[in-house]
Amino acid sequence: MDYSMMAPEKVRKLIREGDITGPTAGMSNGFAQANLVILPEKLAYDFLLFCQRNPRSCPLLEVGNRGDKTLPFLGKDIDITRDIPRYCVYEKGNLVETRQDISDLWKEDFVSFLIGCSFSFETALLDAGVPIRHIEEKCNVPMYKTNIPCAEAGVFKGNMVVSMRPLKMPDLIKATRITGEMPRVHGAPIHFGDPLAIGIEEIEQPDFGDKVTIKDGEIPVFWPCGVTPQNVVMKVKPEMVITHAPGHMLVTDIKNSALKY
Amino acid sequence: MDYSMMAPEKVRKLIREGDITGPTAGMSNGFAQANLVILPEKLAYDFLLFCQRNPRSCPLLEVGNRGDKTLPFLGKDIDITRDIPRYCVYEKGNLVETRQDISDLWKEDFVSFLIGCSFSFETALLDAGVPIRHIEEKCNVPMYKTNIPCAEAGVFKGNMVVSMRPLKMPDLIKATRITGEMPRVHGAPIHFGDPLAIGIEEIEQPDFGDKVTIKDGEIPVFWPCGVTPQNVVMKVKPEMVITHAPGHMLVTDIKNSALKY
Repeated sequence: MDYSMMAPEKVRKLIREGDITGPTAGMSNGFAQANLVILPEKLAYDFLLFCQRNPRSCPLLEVGNRGDKTLPFLGKDIDITRDIPRYCVYEKGNLVETRQDISDLWKEDFVSFLIGCSFSFETALLDAGVPIRHIEEKCNVPMYKTNIPCAEAGVFKGNMVVSMRPLKMPDLIKATRITGEMPRVHGAPIHFGDPLAIGIEEIEQPDFGDKVTIKDGEIPVFWPCGVTPQNVVMKVKPEMVITHAPGHMLVTDIKNSALKY
Repeated sequence: MDYSMMAPEKVRKLIREGDITGPTAGMSNGFAQANLVILPEKLAYDFLLFCQRNPRSCPLLEVGNRGDKTLPFLGKDIDITRDIPRYCVYEKGNLVETRQDISDLWKEDFVSFLIGCSFSFETALLDAGVPIRHIEEKCNVPMYKTNIPCAEAGVFKGNMVVSMRPLKMPDLIKATRITGEMPRVHGAPIHFGDPLAIGIEEIEQPDFGDKVTIKDGEIPVFWPCGVTPQNVVMKVKPEMVITHAPGHMLVTDIKNSALKY
């Protein structure tokens, strides 16, 4: 079944009914997908401030009202507890289970944070003829912990996590220009070239995701990554945090083209 | 005395020492100036969320830590209680006094919100040869209440306030392009032409600021305005709110050119 041309609302309906349970990559072409972090209200201010201070790694697309499962800015009739194909439930920083529906875990003091995702800029890169290695190799994008400090906010602090895509020089320049126009989905690269300059000792061993081939003449190009906020939240070991499972995103009604500055 | 070429840090020192007490327009050319709203912690989450949901009218440049008078992102050694030439103190939504120093009013639960200001884009417009009427007529920019609803957040709701600059068509197009590249200082216009279309009944009678001349062949051009958050906050009638006095801004170390997307 090809979901690439299906409207986001229909894809979310199939997810809610349990007919789609896998990763959302390639679904509803042209529409933005979003990362999810659900936190209890008592951590919400610090996290909102963390996102405000670190817009490169944590570009907020929408923040739900306390206890509210809908997200009217991102889409029609969204129920954030049922419209993502797979969720991760963390207790005190440990993954305790993954599940397709978290409606019975929802609490009145929960707040949903939806964060922009690099799927949006990858579509723009592919449209411009820039090749994306992890898509070619049908694996997850490689992600690395860096020594680039995030701005602290309340209980939240830590370093930036980056994603890496190897590119030849002309594509690097093209990609910098294209992603630079999309600050709500991480924007321009934060670094390219020597991985050690940002504290990455072993490019062959990503901290998250999969290793990809770097061919002769290609330069590793690093973008701020939406795994940063998740990484920073887990350090605080909150009683309960719920996120999307990697690759299993919220498919929104927002067009990628609307996420340009 | 001409402060246009003086470094922001020196201007702030003269303000702190009481040697500058007037409006900051034209000081430290090329550096961003910021609007101030100080709120008690219990309103801070709702206000931060209001700004996140309404970035056109409330583009946040920095949010201070609870009880912290410094603003390290915006400038060196800032004391937000002494580095603005004039403050307005509101109690339950009523202006009770204006003063040059609020250090004795500061409380441990106060949070400072610094919001981008159209002075930054006006510099860019003047540099591009776009005339600005209220500068020519040496008065304040005219501002109007509209019927454009802001996204609500907790206790905060209300309509957008806009500023107006009359421009001829070629300058309107130039100004749209130039300000559109500066989303952190309100970005592109929100409307131009018929004032009634956004609920402005009498263009000759601004709700804030001064009336300016609209010449034959000029079109009124409307931008989201930083008075919006102040207007929305006052409706809630908080125990105490402190803002900058109109035109008496925080002069920051951030270059206007750094506020492009």
